[in-house]
Amino acid sequence: MTKHRKISLEEYLETRKEIVDRALGRYLPEESGPLSEICEAMRYSLFAGGKRLRPVLCMASAETVGGNEQTVLPFACAIEMIHTYSLIHDDLPSMDDDDYRRGKPTNHKVFGEGVAVLAGDALLTEAFRLLSAVHPGISPETTLSIIREIATAAGFKGMIGGQVADLRAESKEVDMGQVQYIHTHKTQALITVSIRAGALIADAGEDDLSALSEYGKKTGLAFQIADDILDIESCREVLGKDTGSDEGRGKATYPALIGLEESRKEMRRLVEGALSEVERFDERADPLRMIARFIAERKS
Amino acid sequence: MTKHRKISLEEYLETRKEIVDRALGRYLPEESGPLSEICEAMRYSLFAGGKRLRPVLCMASAETVGGNEQTVLPFACAIEMIHTYSLIHDDLPSMDDDDYRRGKPTNHKVFGEGVAVLAGDALLTEAFRLLSAVHPGISPETTLSIIREIATAAGFKGMIGGQVADLRAESKEVDMGQVQYIHTHKTQALITVSIRAGALIADAGEDDLSALSEYGKKTGLAFQIADDILDIESCREVLGKDTGSDEGRGKATYPALIGLEESRKEMRRLVEGALSEVERFDERADPLRMIARFIAERKS
Repeated sequence: MTKHRKISLEEYLETRKEIVDRALGRYLPEESGPLSEICEAMRYSLFAGGKRLRPVLCMASAETVGGNEQTVLPFACAIEMIHTYSLIHDDLPSMDDDDYRRGKPTNHKVFGEGVAVLAGDALLTEAFRLLSAVHPGISPETTLSIIREIATAAGFKGMIGGQVADLRAESKEVDMGQVQYIHTHKTQALITVSIRAGALIADAGEDDLSALSEYGKKTGLAFQIADDILDIESCREVLGKDTGSDEGRGKATYPALIGLEESRKEMRRLVEGALSEVERFDERADPLRMIARFIAERKS
Repeated sequence: MTKHRKISLEEYLETRKEIVDRALGRYLPEESGPLSEICEAMRYSLFAGGKRLRPVLCMASAETVGGNEQTVLPFACAIEMIHTYSLIHDDLPSMDDDDYRRGKPTNHKVFGEGVAVLAGDALLTEAFRLLSAVHPGISPETTLSIIREIATAAGFKGMIGGQVADLRAESKEVDMGQVQYIHTHKTQALITVSIRAGALIADAGEDDLSALSEYGKKTGLAFQIADDILDIESCREVLGKDTGSDEGRGKATYPALIGLEESRKEMRRLVEGALSEVERFDERADPLRMIARFIAERKS
């Protein structure tokens, strides 16, 4: 049973990822002339091998309430552009100063810091350009209200606020309240709005929308805790030693504050909560169920 | 006559600037708690004493075709937020590396580079949040199409593309085609869309919209050439010597390529062209006429 599900999940993720990748290629094709460099920088990070979690969740959410994955594509892809811009800017020397992401040199290492800042700016702007098109089958009122939700989730009261808090928390002692603030703003907000956007486009009823939003919040936070855990576990593997002594200081993570075991418990509790939120739906919610379980079991 | 006009212009600019400043203060109030720092950084640059040229042009354009300045305010203010974000990012060490703007330390000198990048990101995102509200008296279709025009003007095919070209032109020999590319993308695009947005909100007819767009393009380019000229003239005053020997190398400017006199002629030609574009309108276009003349005569 588990094995069967796992295969289906892989297939589901693979087909959806391909749909997203093809659409992103259409929305942001290569350019020649004076635009070639900035476009190459934007595409470099956009096609750097992400899991496309946010757009896939957006599609899976729409499918859950009877929507069509094609209709949500521009919204799903715009959210992926926003996610990508945030990674480019987070990696900058003035932020996390990362040289590699997914084993590839970060944007500023390849294109220089100036162009990396601009490539991020351009992806963010392009996302809103894509969102503000006329979308067949979606009323302009709905489009506007989704744009507003996305801008709120991505803005200084959402994702950017989380990044500011993360920046300020570096090498300071932080408490659970601050870690939760960072995680809910930096990661959860954009994941939740991905799911809400899919549901809103598919015209979900109020109760369905509210259940899907709760699923989004729980999955979004579980995903970030899983990320924290993986950070530590991959360190252990690479360094061949327990880095648990770092817990309680340094980075603002769940394991650093409450330890690996408690973090795993909290993550599983959130995933169980997410699963119970979508109990109300039929088998069309299976992708959402699989993704939630996948988060608790993922190895990368 | 000239004196009378100048006084009216000052009054016009002063009252409109006040309306914009008050509205910006409402749209982006001070925050306490974890948002206080990022909000302070956003407000620091937003209220650093700009002329508010773009929002004032947006209002003046709406007034020209019988629109109401209050209706356009969210759009005018969103464009000013986008303009401000672009200044914060342009001043970064990885871009123009400027320590001062209008005599005040630049954003990154006060808040650090990381927060300056995020304050720019946040202003850009907040602009789209503001744009995507429900605006009384404006149809959602019109709002969406204006958002799309603004995103296009601000994006990598507009303002950001101009900044990339500017970055690449530094200390290289550039020709007139490249300087025009930089100016039309980096400055003209956002000024033109400010004027188009005002006209579209006020439901301008096709011919009026087209005349106002042409006025915008000519005024936008004239404004940037005036900026180039002022740069050199203020250098002359400060240094007490002619810096004309720098022409032809270094910065990508009109005076550097065709000299001060020819640049002045070109700027005046553009202003005359802008004035003739708005000949078709009655006295409600007087603010636009005054602003065009002001550009040719401005001293700062």
